[in-house]
Amino acid sequence: MSSISGIPSKMKGVVCYAPGDYRMEELDVPTVGPEEVLVKVTAVGICAGDAKCYAGAPLFWGDKDREPYCQPPIVPGHEFIGEVAALGPGAAEKFSLELGDQAIAESIAPCWNCRYCQRGQYHMCMPHDIYGFHQRTPGAMAGYMKYISDSIIHKVPKSVPPYQAAFIEPLACSIHAVERGNIQFRDVVVVSGCGPLGLGMVAAAKQKNPAKLIALDMFDWKLDIAKKCGADVVLNPGKCDVIAEVKKMTDGYGCDVYIEVSGSPVSVKQGLHMIAKLGTFVEFSVFKNETSVDWTIIGDTKELTIHGGHLGYNTYPKAISMLANKELPIDDIISHQLPLSDVVKGIDLVNSSSESIKVVLIPE
Amino acid sequence: MSSISGIPSKMKGVVCYAPGDYRMEELDVPTVGPEEVLVKVTAVGICAGDAKCYAGAPLFWGDKDREPYCQPPIVPGHEFIGEVAALGPGAAEKFSLELGDQAIAESIAPCWNCRYCQRGQYHMCMPHDIYGFHQRTPGAMAGYMKYISDSIIHKVPKSVPPYQAAFIEPLACSIHAVERGNIQFRDVVVVSGCGPLGLGMVAAAKQKNPAKLIALDMFDWKLDIAKKCGADVVLNPGKCDVIAEVKKMTDGYGCDVYIEVSGSPVSVKQGLHMIAKLGTFVEFSVFKNETSVDWTIIGDTKELTIHGGHLGYNTYPKAISMLANKELPIDDIISHQLPLSDVVKGIDLVNSSSESIKVVLIPE
Amino acid sequence: MSSISGIPSKMKGVVCYAPGDYRMEELDVPTVGPEEVLVKVTAVGICAGDAKCYAGAPLFWGDKDREPYCQPPIVPGHEFIGEVAALGPGAAEKFSLELGDQAIAESIAPCWNCRYCQRGQYHMCMPHDIYGFHQRTPGAMAGYMKYISDSIIHKVPKSVPPYQAAFIEPLACSIHAVERGNIQFRDVVVVSGCGPLGLGMVAAAKQKNPAKLIALDMFDWKLDIAKKCGADVVLNPGKCDVIAEVKKMTDGYGCDVYIEVSGSPVSVKQGLHMIAKLGTFVEFSVFKNETSVDWTIIGDTKELTIHGGHLGYNTYPKAISMLANKELPIDDIISHQLPLSDVVKGIDLVNSSSESIKVVLIPE
Amino acid sequence: MSSISGIPSKMKGVVCYAPGDYRMEELDVPTVGPEEVLVKVTAVGICAGDAKCYAGAPLFWGDKDREPYCQPPIVPGHEFIGEVAALGPGAAEKFSLELGDQAIAESIAPCWNCRYCQRGQYHMCMPHDIYGFHQRTPGAMAGYMKYISDSIIHKVPKSVPPYQAAFIEPLACSIHAVERGNIQFRDVVVVSGCGPLGLGMVAAAKQKNPAKLIALDMFDWKLDIAKKCGADVVLNPGKCDVIAEVKKMTDGYGCDVYIEVSGSPVSVKQGLHMIAKLGTFVEFSVFKNETSVDWTIIGDTKELTIHGGHLGYNTYPKAISMLANKELPIDDIISHQLPLSDVVKGIDLVNSSSESIKVVLIPE
Repeated sequence: MSSISGIPSKMKGVVCYAPGDYRMEELDVPTVGPEEVLVKVTAVGICAGDAKCYAGAPLFWGDKDREPYCQPPIVPGHEFIGEVAALGPGAAEKFSLELGDQAIAESIAPCWNCRYCQRGQYHMCMPHDIYGFHQRTPGAMAGYMKYISDSIIHKVPKSVPPYQAAFIEPLACSIHAVERGNIQFRDVVVVSGCGPLGLGMVAAAKQKNPAKLIALDMFDWKLDIAKKCGADVVLNPGKCDVIAEVKKMTDGYGCDVYIEVSGSPVSVKQGLHMIAKLGTFVEFSVFKNETSVDWTIIGDTKELTIHGGHLGYNTYPKAISMLANKELPIDDIISHQLPLSDVVKGIDLVNSSSESIKVVLIPE
Repeated sequence: MSSISGIPSKMKGVVCYAPGDYRMEELDVPTVGPEEVLVKVTAVGICAGDAKCYAGAPLFWGDKDREPYCQPPIVPGHEFIGEVAALGPGAAEKFSLELGDQAIAESIAPCWNCRYCQRGQYHMCMPHDIYGFHQRTPGAMAGYMKYISDSIIHKVPKSVPPYQAAFIEPLACSIHAVERGNIQFRDVVVVSGCGPLGLGMVAAAKQKNPAKLIALDMFDWKLDIAKKCGADVVLNPGKCDVIAEVKKMTDGYGCDVYIEVSGSPVSVKQGLHMIAKLGTFVEFSVFKNETSVDWTIIGDTKELTIHGGHLGYNTYPKAISMLANKELPIDDIISHQLPLSDVVKGIDLVNSSSESIKVVLIPE
Repeated sequence: MSSISGIPSKMKGVVCYAPGDYRMEELDVPTVGPEEVLVKVTAVGICAGDAKCYAGAPLFWGDKDREPYCQPPIVPGHEFIGEVAALGPGAAEKFSLELGDQAIAESIAPCWNCRYCQRGQYHMCMPHDIYGFHQRTPGAMAGYMKYISDSIIHKVPKSVPPYQAAFIEPLACSIHAVERGNIQFRDVVVVSGCGPLGLGMVAAAKQKNPAKLIALDMFDWKLDIAKKCGADVVLNPGKCDVIAEVKKMTDGYGCDVYIEVSGSPVSVKQGLHMIAKLGTFVEFSVFKNETSVDWTIIGDTKELTIHGGHLGYNTYPKAISMLANKELPIDDIISHQLPLSDVVKGIDLVNSSSESIKVVLIPE
Repeated sequence: MSSISGIPSKMKGVVCYAPGDYRMEELDVPTVGPEEVLVKVTAVGICAGDAKCYAGAPLFWGDKDREPYCQPPIVPGHEFIGEVAALGPGAAEKFSLELGDQAIAESIAPCWNCRYCQRGQYHMCMPHDIYGFHQRTPGAMAGYMKYISDSIIHKVPKSVPPYQAAFIEPLACSIHAVERGNIQFRDVVVVSGCGPLGLGMVAAAKQKNPAKLIALDMFDWKLDIAKKCGADVVLNPGKCDVIAEVKKMTDGYGCDVYIEVSGSPVSVKQGLHMIAKLGTFVEFSVFKNETSVDWTIIGDTKELTIHGGHLGYNTYPKAISMLANKELPIDDIISHQLPLSDVVKGIDLVNSSSESIKVVLIPE
């Protein structure tokens, strides 16, 4: 075991106790065991999921059909980056790490024992320990955090500053969504929703070089960023009939691939009407409401292929390389940086989607 | 051009004028041009779609979002079989047919010019002329009908009697649905709905030899037929908690493939809850109502693959061979045979799913 | 830790020292540590690979391009079945096993750390410890053997007698080859070579219910067994022009899927000429000689898809179920049973393919 | 029917009579019938296949196993571009063309009747009429040529000059090869051979944005062009151990995708040794000689996927857009432009691969 000098025994950190009850507290700095890694957290993003957890969404706190996912008290934060401060026995070898390296653990720490892990589909791991929710994996909204032994860890070049590296996790998700779209050169591709995930998808989809890449959002200023991410065409569904526009661009057939990341039932229905027969529809959102739609469209009318998507999956190296090579307008996407103690203000900003894209917290 | 002797100039036939307005009339026997085939209709099934058309469903008669599909006055009937009565110039060569052959045309007559036809995806042809709806392709509820030149025609061995051969079209659909399920040996497969299409899917799915094949229906007597079709397990959702039962059989993971063919929103939701993460959900129904469900399940929670399905597609030869080799309990599936003049009674039977499975009309 | 009573401390076993130098010796019965399983070996098959190893093939003993794979002195044997005799700490829970169970470990013991293992492709594991070759994984040609902790272990119902259960491993390979063929209902499928693997492939391919299943072999008596395995047509390339015959059956197009398992360059060339354009060619053999052929056929002429195959991969449960349900003529396939001490005689029989199919050894 | 004014009745053209016997002759300008298009040929490339045909290769002139493909006397030339000079009845509507348009017909004129055409796989059409070989489809080495009614025709913007547009056909082939490689973001991709097709593949593969793109060739000056096409790394197998180099770059695993387009057996063997287990090997060459190699590598050792490739397939629009958008260094790739009468000199240049890449002929 090795460690840098000067690691304190105490740190400041956010603790989630219940919806709306997140407290800044003084916590013990974690100690590391075999094959574990301690990092000094240098930045941590606020996910829309974090905001929904704070608001008390049933997905996290349970309801009659679901067990609660969140296990309080817990330090939240799964979009993180850190600097290696201590390496437990065997960790340096296992993860090819040295003290001082900038490194990220994938947001899910697989169990490596369930059916999915054994098949290599680690992102669907049954126990599903995402950092920041379960007791096995406390998150990053603190001065230090521990990457547990089952983690998948990647080094990140220091040319990527921490506030940008906090975007690796969401970008890895975006890349996975794009891969689920199976985009070909001849495809007309629509990304619906230009929040942080959607913008990452536009940037990643551009790298597949489809025939046309179209981005949709209700805010023109986000569409401007979508253009910088590589969109060939941007359309505001609040201002034009986007279904008619896309059909016009495609000889009436509709788009080949529709990537839904707005989380809005309206966007789902719009996509089902905009997409061509035999098209591929990617669904990556977390929804607040149910979507009511005629499933005849999926089957009998259009014989669609719908591909759901969850987390990143073998996509972190690509996300790191996109950031290292400056292949997306990251400074437009990271709209806000706040000190960690402003976590609640940060959550408010995330909820106010007219004002923010990605909000990143910096531990003091 | 050649023809059998004794073809009359007039025939009895059903003509659809409007919802609820189907009339038995005396019609001209069609004449055949180049590469066209006249058949004496020997049997014609009533599809659930026919019943919905009779009832005035917007899918056929249009609404504010949709053009009408049905073009009256038109002879309905797309689940047919016939005996070759006349061959237009070139038809014998083009289709390798002789007078007296038993032969079926696929229910869609492709245009061979649209994007889908050029890609070989003829079942999604844009003009979409299914026999019995459009003026280019009058249907089979008459003494004779014409297979137009663009048709895809298959010979059917005479060992398959006409009332059974009328089931080739729906069985070809069922096989296509099963192929969309991409069933592997290790899969646990559920077919939800044991009407004629569902039973055909059970029989076809059995031929993929999955680890376990489960059939669901609200009627026990249909489940008994599902067993004869090859179901390993049958469950009645009206009598047990089918989600819990299927999870119990799969170590809690859920089924790998769920084929939805009941046309009921309840079955869609049930399937989304019953299926394993990363599972494949096939949707083949025509729905009367919208389905309201949380699309988070499709994406974030389970990363599903949903495959819609429509018509048969390169599956007629398999359907013919299944019937010729008696690989499904066809006499249980064909629950009723009626004279053509009883068409309205037949439609009533189709609507009364507690009493019938497949209803076949026999022209006099 | 638990164990049955009466486990001796010594056992008889075969030890491979060098090509041609296999000795029957008295060995220590292995002891088991955490998550390890001791089994009493009840039967062990001789693979063609074992015979090649005995003969000194470079694949096992190295040459200028290759490191040796075999690490003597080692107990050979990777087609085995055993009865659980002792369970190390945690093994009962990890593998859901009890003393006395009949159980098989997959022939490869994955490292779970290399790129392939992490992607779930454990059968291509880089260290590649197959039982019976590497020091980490001594094989089954002995009274007892140890299933190490990284193994994938399956229970086998006792209704499958040991001499049949020794065929699980090769049958799992055959099933994997068939899965690599991606067989559809409409396909004409050819299996070239009716040794033990080829016959298993015929039986497994039959379970996909292709349009036609054709088996090829130089020995008519093996073709008779292929018929019992489900072949619709059998052809002897020594007695007829099999390329012409298959083209005749397919309107001149050729077969859709060709599974090559003879290990003969002649069969490779024959397959490349017999297969249709855009067909799928599966290669599963270990070859003694190079194959010289014009690769233009693969690319420009036919745009083929060639799928190699190696070992079983997620196919043991299906193999077990096929044997438990008596879905192949196993007593025809197991042509010889010999006492373990006759190992060299057994290897001679394997080499004499005109006389034997599968040879199984029974430890005394 | 419409035509531009001033179409002569006679034209100069090359006629292939036999290997080595290509004559410049005065020919009748073709006349056009229904749905046919006459173009003034503005440029025509010489394919390596043209050079092999001139040299008498058995692929074109037959041997004991093969029928001759070439049907003399015939005007050669399938890499062409032209200006619409006359439109037969219906041609303007069918192909959306006007007089004066720059337009290309795909090099194969499908029959639209064989199994492959009906499945949309028109590039594998059985009669296989490629312009310049069969009597139904005379080629482009003349003042004018006819695009027959079954052709697939694309308009080409006039911003692409003819000598560049002659590269659309080979580039469409290159794109198809790349699509057969199924390149993912995380892949290390090798293109072996930097002739015109190989350079097009480098440019197209770059548009998939793999983790690393490596080009191989024996000539450093071609590798320099490969870099301009987007190769991240270039290696000369004549100067270094390329297998060792690629393994070094991939932690010893080897490349994920290997695209073989050199036509050399050495490159095939090199690829089989350089590629990772479970990798995808694309074969797109026409070979002069057989390749002798141990097929155990394909199956047992590496479980490879080999994808053959032939012609372009739904890739012309992408090729046109790459040229229109200047996405490859076309002026480096078109190494020579000659008058049509220098056809034999052009063929010599093609054979002298040390001096030329793509040679284009310009009709006078």
